[in-house]
Amino acid sequence: MRFDIITVLPDLLSGPLSCSIVERAKNKGLVEIHTHNLRDYASNKHKSVDDYAYGGGAGMVLQVEPFAACIEALQAERSYDEIIYMTPDGETFKQDHANALSLKGNIMILCGHYKGIDQRIRDIFVTKEISVGDFVLSGGEIPAALVTDAVVRLIPGVLSDETSALSDSFQDGLLDAPAYSRPAVWRGHKVPDVLLSGHEAKINQWRDEQRYEKTAKRRPDLLK
Amino acid sequence: MRFDIITVLPDLLSGPLSCSIVERAKNKGLVEIHTHNLRDYASNKHKSVDDYAYGGGAGMVLQVEPFAACIEALQAERSYDEIIYMTPDGETFKQDHANALSLKGNIMILCGHYKGIDQRIRDIFVTKEISVGDFVLSGGEIPAALVTDAVVRLIPGVLSDETSALSDSFQDGLLDAPAYSRPAVWRGHKVPDVLLSGHEAKINQWRDEQRYEKTAKRRPDLLK
Repeated sequence: MRFDIITVLPDLLSGPLSCSIVERAKNKGLVEIHTHNLRDYASNKHKSVDDYAYGGGAGMVLQVEPFAACIEALQAERSYDEIIYMTPDGETFKQDHANALSLKGNIMILCGHYKGIDQRIRDIFVTKEISVGDFVLSGGEIPAALVTDAVVRLIPGVLSDETSALSDSFQDGLLDAPAYSRPAVWRGHKVPDVLLSGHEAKINQWRDEQRYEKTAKRRPDLLK
Repeated sequence: MRFDIITVLPDLLSGPLSCSIVERAKNKGLVEIHTHNLRDYASNKHKSVDDYAYGGGAGMVLQVEPFAACIEALQAERSYDEIIYMTPDGETFKQDHANALSLKGNIMILCGHYKGIDQRIRDIFVTKEISVGDFVLSGGEIPAALVTDAVVRLIPGVLSDETSALSDSFQDGLLDAPAYSRPAVWRGHKVPDVLLSGHEAKINQWRDEQRYEKTAKRRPDLLK
């Protein structure tokens, strides 16, 4: 699987894309992640890639030409299953989207910044618009890192124990049960007895009860 | 305003917390952001901070002791308005939360990793549990960067033009209008005439119509 991420801030992405599980997946050869600096595709000598919005108003807009040049340079090398634009007015990202994207081959992700990107890029090139939630950020870089992380960890072989991803919150529509580790008693606060009992069936029953209770209390919408 | 973020992966956060608008806010003295490596608070000589989950199952759990040591060391220096744990079973983060947090003084954010953190940390120290959406990530670092970015850009003086944040998607419950910048015609694709007309009232009317139409089509839930 391959990700190509187009951004005006490649430095922002270097940490999130070279740590922990994403780094391990790259080292195992299970995923390639390339970031592309939009400024490298600017045709003017100042390497500027944004300009004022037509019609006025606050905030700069990333222009159509550098994005088109970068997207087309990548498309000349390989075909892409999806060209995703990260934007707060896109479809809200859920675990189902991560599952579906983890089965794709080549994914391109466009990061907006400032007031966003020229609408014509969205109309002509973008195949999917994804929002990570109902809030506004400085740019699409953190959302792009988020989507990449959510997808990469689902690629078979990335997590050392495959059941770990399957038992996560949301994979079966329920929130996860409380977790405890050593010590069994800390400043008088004890781990629930059942978890120390060694009775696997009772432990599973307790965890299932906890998951239903927590989901009913915190996210009743997930049980509908 | 001050953020203290506790993590096992401080390197992951260095990019997102030292770029763009967050960096500008730090340079203007409007926000301080400190990351703390949880391993520095491990009491064993191997600096390990995680262990198996009681009751069995895949995935490691971050233990209670190093978190408690780090949190209490920070609390000895100053009081915190919120101690936030980033977790998929928390309350879903929205623009309203960002607005509210931007008025606080000191915020501590705990990042989980692997299967999460020992429940006792959540029970004893945490004042707010925040999810950035219904999906699972490798850890709480990208969500912590996301929340920090969403909040920092709202602090007065951070964005050069304050109206820019106010006209973003979600601030009035509507998605943003399409944006266009130069050139006016690109490969035959034209910017809508009204945006080139110079008639401010017509431009505002067109933008409002676009915002309602897009919201009604993509996110009817926001109009209820």
